[in-house]
Amino acid sequence: MRLSRYFLPVLKENPAEAQIVSHRLMLRAGMIKQASAGIYSWLPMGFKVLRKLENIVHEEQARAGHMAMLMPTIQSADLWRESGRYDAYGAEMLRIKDRHDRDMLFTPTAEELITDIFRAHVGSYKDLPLTMYQIQWKFRDEVRPRFGVMRGREFFMKDGYNFDLTKEDALHAYNRHLVSYLRTYERMGLQAIPMRADSGPIGGDDTHEFLVLADTGESEVFYDSAVTDIRLGERDIDYNDKDQCRAVMEEFTALYARTDETHNELKFNEIPEERRRSARGIEVGQIFYFGTKYSEPLGATVQGPDGKPVPVHMGSHGIGVSRLVGAIIEASHDEKGIIWPEGVTPYHAGIVNLKQGDAEADAACESLYNALQALGLEALYDDRNERAGGKFATMDLIGLPWRITVGPRGLKNGVVELTSRRSGESEELPPEQAVEKIAKIYAGHRVSGL
Amino acid sequence: MRLSRYFLPVLKENPAEAQIVSHRLMLRAGMIKQASAGIYSWLPMGFKVLRKLENIVHEEQARAGHMAMLMPTIQSADLWRESGRYDAYGAEMLRIKDRHDRDMLFTPTAEELITDIFRAHVGSYKDLPLTMYQIQWKFRDEVRPRFGVMRGREFFMKDGYNFDLTKEDALHAYNRHLVSYLRTYERMGLQAIPMRADSGPIGGDDTHEFLVLADTGESEVFYDSAVTDIRLGERDIDYNDKDQCRAVMEEFTALYARTDETHNELKFNEIPEERRRSARGIEVGQIFYFGTKYSEPLGATVQGPDGKPVPVHMGSHGIGVSRLVGAIIEASHDEKGIIWPEGVTPYHAGIVNLKQGDAEADAACESLYNALQALGLEALYDDRNERAGGKFATMDLIGLPWRITVGPRGLKNGVVELTSRRSGESEELPPEQAVEKIAKIYAGHRVSGL
Repeated sequence: MRLSRYFLPVLKENPAEAQIVSHRLMLRAGMIKQASAGIYSWLPMGFKVLRKLENIVHEEQARAGHMAMLMPTIQSADLWRESGRYDAYGAEMLRIKDRHDRDMLFTPTAEELITDIFRAHVGSYKDLPLTMYQIQWKFRDEVRPRFGVMRGREFFMKDGYNFDLTKEDALHAYNRHLVSYLRTYERMGLQAIPMRADSGPIGGDDTHEFLVLADTGESEVFYDSAVTDIRLGERDIDYNDKDQCRAVMEEFTALYARTDETHNELKFNEIPEERRRSARGIEVGQIFYFGTKYSEPLGATVQGPDGKPVPVHMGSHGIGVSRLVGAIIEASHDEKGIIWPEGVTPYHAGIVNLKQGDAEADAACESLYNALQALGLEALYDDRNERAGGKFATMDLIGLPWRITVGPRGLKNGVVELTSRRSGESEELPPEQAVEKIAKIYAGHRVSGL
Repeated sequence: MRLSRYFLPVLKENPAEAQIVSHRLMLRAGMIKQASAGIYSWLPMGFKVLRKLENIVHEEQARAGHMAMLMPTIQSADLWRESGRYDAYGAEMLRIKDRHDRDMLFTPTAEELITDIFRAHVGSYKDLPLTMYQIQWKFRDEVRPRFGVMRGREFFMKDGYNFDLTKEDALHAYNRHLVSYLRTYERMGLQAIPMRADSGPIGGDDTHEFLVLADTGESEVFYDSAVTDIRLGERDIDYNDKDQCRAVMEEFTALYARTDETHNELKFNEIPEERRRSARGIEVGQIFYFGTKYSEPLGATVQGPDGKPVPVHMGSHGIGVSRLVGAIIEASHDEKGIIWPEGVTPYHAGIVNLKQGDAEADAACESLYNALQALGLEALYDDRNERAGGKFATMDLIGLPWRITVGPRGLKNGVVELTSRRSGESEELPPEQAVEKIAKIYAGHRVSGL
C-alpha cells in the first residue's frame, strides 16, 4: 500500500477523551473512530489488524478440531426466557422490539441459541463429541463505556461451545481449549496467563480467565512469578490426546495465579515471598465448564449407549477479539507509539523514501516494494512529499516492526537501512539482503489472507 | 473433514416452510437453521460457503484498489436525522433505545456514517479519490421475511462508498465498480447482468442492478438476449485506466437490459423480435452515483485546487453476500440437490468409501484425503458406516462438484472413480491421477483461506 493513497488519518494531538494508552494510540494512528459512546468504526489499518486476529483465532480453532459457524446478532427473547437468563441479565442486555412488537435482543453471548441448534439436530451419543464456535459481533450496553475498544459496547468476540457425553469428555474439551487459547495468544505475541476466576452470569464450576499483565488492566491479579516463565512454544500437541492436553493444563495452572474474585490470602502466602506478585491484568479470554446448566432446562439430551436419554455436558469459551487489539497495544508500545508483534502487524514492513522525487530513490523504493510483495509480504510505502522527520514519526506511531529507509546517500554505497521498531537498532545492507532478512523473520508468522 | 465428525444435519424430508429451491436445499443440506423469522444461524457448511464469498469479494475489492474497513451495526439516530433519512426510512429500520434512552438503530446501510468519517478526516482534494467499503451484517425489518437467506431480515452485505472531486472522477469509480462486480460474480460461477434500475431510498441519477436470471427471481426483467453472450473472462483490466473501465461499462450496458421499474416498451420493441426476452431475475448487487446528495446536507467538502470548499461527488455500491449463497443455488441445482460452482464450493471434492472397514478401501481413502490436503485442497470424506446409496444421495444433495468413489472392486484394478456432479459423467483412473486432475481443475479457483 502506498501511503499517499491510503486512508490513515493520523492525529498529531492526544485526544482528550482517551484515558489509556491503547485508546490514545488507536485514535492517533488512525485505526478507529468513535461512532457513538462505546461504539467504533474500524478504519482500514485498524480493520486489517482485527481481521488478522480473527484469522489467527480461526486457524487455531481449526487446528483443535472445532467447527466454525455463525449465529445471528439479533435473537428472539423466547429462548432466553426458557433458560431464565432474560430477566437475570439486567440492563446490559440491549432489548429491542421489532415491527411486530416481538421481544428481541442483541446477543451478548449464545449459550441458548447453540443449545437450541444442538437439541434440534443431535440425538445420539454417537454424534459426540462436538465443538462449534463463531466469531461474531456482540453487544453489552455498559453504563459507562470507556477505554476505547477495551470496554466498548459493540465488540467482536469468539465464542465456542462444546457438547460431550460425560464430564470426563467435557473436561478434555476444557483442557483442549486451554491449550489452543495459549497457542492463539502466543501467536499474537502475547503472554496470557490462565488464572482461576469467577464464573459470573455464565455459571458453572470450573473456569479460567486468561490475563495479560498490564498496568492499565481492569483486574487485580495475584500470582507466583514463576508462572510467567512458562511458554507453550513450538511443542507439537495432539489435541485428541487427553493426557497430553491435561498435562499442559496442569503445567500452566499448578502455580498460584488468581484474579481478586478468587484470591485466597492463605494460599498466596504459601508462595516463597520473593515470588509473590500482585499486579493488574487485562482479561482477553475465558473458558468454562458448566456441566448440564443449560442442557437440562433447554432439554438438550442425547440417547446414551444404554438407550436412555442423558443431558449433555457443556462448556463455553470466549476470546475478546476486538479487545485484543487494545490489549496487544497496552502490552507493546513505547512513548513514540505502537510496537506490533510480528504475528499481528498490519503491514510487515514500512518503506521510507527520504527523497521523494529523486529518480534513484524512487526506483529503489518501488523495487523493494515489489520484491516484498512478490514474496507475499505486505509493505506500507511512505511515498508522500514529507520531510524525513515526519515520515519517521508516522512509522514509529503506527508501529510496523521493521522499517527500510532509502536515501540517495545510502544508495550511492549500494545500501539501505533496516531498523527494528522494538530495539531501535539499524543496520545498513544491500536492498536484496534487507528483503531476504524480512522474509526470514516472517517465515514463522504467516496468517491466511484477508 | 471426516463426515463422521462433521456437524452436517442433513434433512430427508422437504421442510414445509420452504417455498423456493434454495431455501429448501439450504435447510436440507444442513447449511442454515432458522433462529427467528427471517433470521438464520449458519451451520458449518453454510458458513464455509458464506466465508468464501466474503473472501472473494475482499480479494476483488483489493484488486480494484478499494480499502476495507468496518462500521458498527448499532448506530446513533442523530446522523440519520441530519441526512433526513431517519423519518424517511419507515418501518423497515430496526429502531432501538439504549439504557440511557438514546435513539439508536441497526444499520440497513451506511452512507451517513461513512460521510461522517470522511468529513472528520479529509480536508483536501489531494486526498481524493478515495473508496472504502465494508462487509458487515445489516438489518431490514421486512414485514414478511421469506425465501430463506434471499429475503431475510439480518443479512450480510458488502457496501462501498467512493468520494471524488468531480463528477467525471465519480463516474470512473462507478465504472470501476461495475467491472470489479462483474469479475466478482464470474468468479462465483454466476452470470449477473447489469440492468438499468431505479435508485429507491439511496437516491441519485445513475444506477445499475446486477441480476441473475432465475425463475424464482423477485424482479421482472426485460433484455436483449445478446447480452447473455458477453463475458469478462480473463481480460486484464487496469482499474486506474478510465478509458478501459468505461469501455467495459459501455460494452455491458449498451444492449437493452432493464428491470420492470425502468422498462420502456418502445425501446424494448426496437430489439429484433427473436432476441426480445422477459424473465425473472434475482438482484445480487447494485451500484449508484448520487453526486452530492449526502455530501451537501452532511457538509462533506474538500478544499478544491482553487482553495474554495466543494462538496464531494459520491456513489455507493452493494453486494448481497448472504443472499448470493441462495442466488447461486437458484442458478445451479438439479432435482438431487445443489451443484456448487468450483469457485465457491465448500469442499473441493468428496470421497465416498463404498466399504468402510475394509482395510484396503480405508487406506486408499486416507491416502487420497491426505494427498488432496497436501495440495491445499479440502476434501469431505464420507467415512460413515452407511450404504453406498445413502452416501451418494448425501453427496448429491450437498453438491460438491467432484466426487471420488473408492471401492474394493476398483482398487483390485488400481482405479477409483471420479464423477462430475454437474454432468454426472464418471471415469475410472488411478488415485494419483484423480488427485492430479482435481488439482488442475481448481488451479484457477483459489480463494484465500477461511
